[in-house]
Amino acid sequence: MRWLLSIHRGLYTLGSRPAGKARTIASRCRFCGTLSASKPQPQPRFGLLFDIDGVLVRGRMPIPAARKAFEKLIDSRGQFVVPVVFVTNAGNCLRQTKADQLSHILGVPITQDQVIMSHSPLRMFKKFHEKCVLVSGQGPVLEIAKNLGFKNVISIDMLRESFPLLDMVDHNRRPKLPSNPVSNLPVVEGVMLFGEPIRWETNLQLIVDVLLTNGNLSSPHNTQAMPHLPLLACNMDLMWMAEAHSPRFGHGTFLVCLENIYKKITGKELKYEALMGKPSELTYHFAEYLIRSQAMQRQWKNPITSLYAIGDNLMTDIYGANLYSRYLEERTSRKNPKAMIAKVAAATGSNAAVPQEEEIDNMRESELALPSATSCKSVLVCTGVYNPNAEVPSDASRCLKQTVFHGHRDFRFDPDLVEPDHVVQDVNEAVDLIFKQENFVPE
Amino acid sequence: MRWLLSIHRGLYTLGSRPAGKARTIASRCRFCGTLSASKPQPQPRFGLLFDIDGVLVRGRMPIPAARKAFEKLIDSRGQFVVPVVFVTNAGNCLRQTKADQLSHILGVPITQDQVIMSHSPLRMFKKFHEKCVLVSGQGPVLEIAKNLGFKNVISIDMLRESFPLLDMVDHNRRPKLPSNPVSNLPVVEGVMLFGEPIRWETNLQLIVDVLLTNGNLSSPHNTQAMPHLPLLACNMDLMWMAEAHSPRFGHGTFLVCLENIYKKITGKELKYEALMGKPSELTYHFAEYLIRSQAMQRQWKNPITSLYAIGDNLMTDIYGANLYSRYLEERTSRKNPKAMIAKVAAATGSNAAVPQEEEIDNMRESELALPSATSCKSVLVCTGVYNPNAEVPSDASRCLKQTVFHGHRDFRFDPDLVEPDHVVQDVNEAVDLIFKQENFVPE
Repeated sequence: MRWLLSIHRGLYTLGSRPAGKARTIASRCRFCGTLSASKPQPQPRFGLLFDIDGVLVRGRMPIPAARKAFEKLIDSRGQFVVPVVFVTNAGNCLRQTKADQLSHILGVPITQDQVIMSHSPLRMFKKFHEKCVLVSGQGPVLEIAKNLGFKNVISIDMLRESFPLLDMVDHNRRPKLPSNPVSNLPVVEGVMLFGEPIRWETNLQLIVDVLLTNGNLSSPHNTQAMPHLPLLACNMDLMWMAEAHSPRFGHGTFLVCLENIYKKITGKELKYEALMGKPSELTYHFAEYLIRSQAMQRQWKNPITSLYAIGDNLMTDIYGANLYSRYLEERTSRKNPKAMIAKVAAATGSNAAVPQEEEIDNMRESELALPSATSCKSVLVCTGVYNPNAEVPSDASRCLKQTVFHGHRDFRFDPDLVEPDHVVQDVNEAVDLIFKQENFVPE
Repeated sequence: MRWLLSIHRGLYTLGSRPAGKARTIASRCRFCGTLSASKPQPQPRFGLLFDIDGVLVRGRMPIPAARKAFEKLIDSRGQFVVPVVFVTNAGNCLRQTKADQLSHILGVPITQDQVIMSHSPLRMFKKFHEKCVLVSGQGPVLEIAKNLGFKNVISIDMLRESFPLLDMVDHNRRPKLPSNPVSNLPVVEGVMLFGEPIRWETNLQLIVDVLLTNGNLSSPHNTQAMPHLPLLACNMDLMWMAEAHSPRFGHGTFLVCLENIYKKITGKELKYEALMGKPSELTYHFAEYLIRSQAMQRQWKNPITSLYAIGDNLMTDIYGANLYSRYLEERTSRKNPKAMIAKVAAATGSNAAVPQEEEIDNMRESELALPSATSCKSVLVCTGVYNPNAEVPSDASRCLKQTVFHGHRDFRFDPDLVEPDHVVQDVNEAVDLIFKQENFVPE
């Protein structure tokens, strides 16, 4: 049984639980093997969800408040004093890679089990794992897909090589001689959009080609063919905050292009089988589950009843936390998960944003669908994409008319959902506030 | 006085008109200098406007019917028997380059004065010629802009180099070290979109940045700043036909992305100062003027009263020819150019599609605004983007509801304007049909 995350000289291991030692915090040195006991820590009843970009880093630069905040979250043995997960909409690397980056930036050891990326829920979509799926993004997309359980994945570059006449925008990359498609590629059965690719014209053209040929690029377009192939998209962030003055394009901007080109060509709406990443409620289910798992590992007996989500983006972090909190509150009051999820679906304006019935059933079988949390508070920081000088007007009807909705097309603008529970300057202030709210005083 | 285009052994020169020889066709050999007289050609009362992609070529491959058609258009001395212009929405090269390509493909000599590219009307926009203008496209965009009269042009790449923190989509092109903008670039005062660029994410990001900072990239975004900087766009083609089975993305698809990203971020419509290229009426004005000039050069006394526009695209070639024909017909009946142009503007749903009042006045001063043509017939070929199996329904109300409009956002769908006067298989059949309609029998 794994029970304890211990650290010594910057290295950490998982030890075995000695019988009858549940309430004693101990750490085992990886080098000398000795166990040291110390006075018990207060046991938390809450867990923390941290966004990364705009909260902990901006581009490659750490935000100074992040290190200060994490000093408070780690005890003298290098262990977290509360359950902590990192929920990012980034999707262009493996969880382990992101965990390593965070360990380096924050100066504390982070494991991949503390990281939720926008593509993490794709593990659940087992019905696609054996199918031939086209994947779009940058970074090691084939490796990420295989890591998630997909057995038969092809990339945009593989399509380009097999069908050289399709990608014609860049004059210098057009085939120099007439060429016919020579392909052993199977027919594509689904499309996964992990994150923003490079050379958008190439991915947009080939994804549209795949959708309009029902996955067989040897055929001409058929704009009448409906429904199109299943489309799974991760990360809806329209923009994100890097070092520049103003936000930069994210995957949501790529989706705006894809949705509008598809609509212009076919006259019909592009439909998503699923939309993952914040503010999708699926992502918060995972986060809650991982937080509960950490508490179990640490043998904290108190249930984790409160979650705090700290982020810089009204349309993803705040909207997502509030949407999930609405779900938790209704669950607590009604004890009827299916009806309640349907209600959340109505709020999002789309089925794609929430798990389908089959997936809800799958989740109920697992621990996932049984959250111990009853609320998820949203905490907005001002170190990222949020501009305190351009606040959302308090009057709802004015909001709907005047505020520009930077959320995804399939999420309805609801003024209540973009209203943070707390606004603080930075992540360090956020941790102070939460400790105060919870009357939590670490050793 | 220049009067004659003559050809001998594939080389052609302009000669001086011998007094009293107006009705005698003569050619001067470039090598031996001898003049040879022959029987008079019939004098045409019509001119031809050829689209290029999908009519004369598909990608790099000539369409066989094109050479056959041009054999009929050239007399034994290598001279055109009717005025001919090539009207292309391509915008990524100089007119001379396009003329050289056509000479090679068709086996007949084409001069740059026979070529209208989508950016050609920018010569008229003199109020921008001294301003600092950002130009987007691929190919020699700075050279093209300078050739059109612009004195102070900067490229997207120049912006990227000066502001390295702005273009963040491609992880591998992000600056490796923190960097501050170091720029001697002037404030941008206008944006010109010549044609589809490569790396759409880069151009989309930087164009949006320029629009939202009022041309000063050192400033943060101001999404309230309206109106945005003047935006001039050439070539609205959503798609075009290359070698592949199905149409490929054109500059119109890039504009769909730009318009929708701008709207998503600001909540407001992107506005064009001018839209050039087919189906814009500005482009047909130029074409008519060049055709008239050719007739004058050849000293054909009959006015050119009929134009025929041969194209493969309902939304550009047919729509544009019919829109211009409507203009010519109303002009003939009302003799009131300003009122008539206003009426055409109403049909397009935008002022951007037609010249502004100042430009109309400029044109009236020149020969441009005095067309001799009274009609422009549209001839659709089936060798390009048009699919005869997906015809426009004849019933207008059904059209508006069911047909997908592939024209630009600022051009209203009008079923009458996408109805060709003639449909033929290819350009060779088109020339046969026109000769028959005009009772024209070349020597």
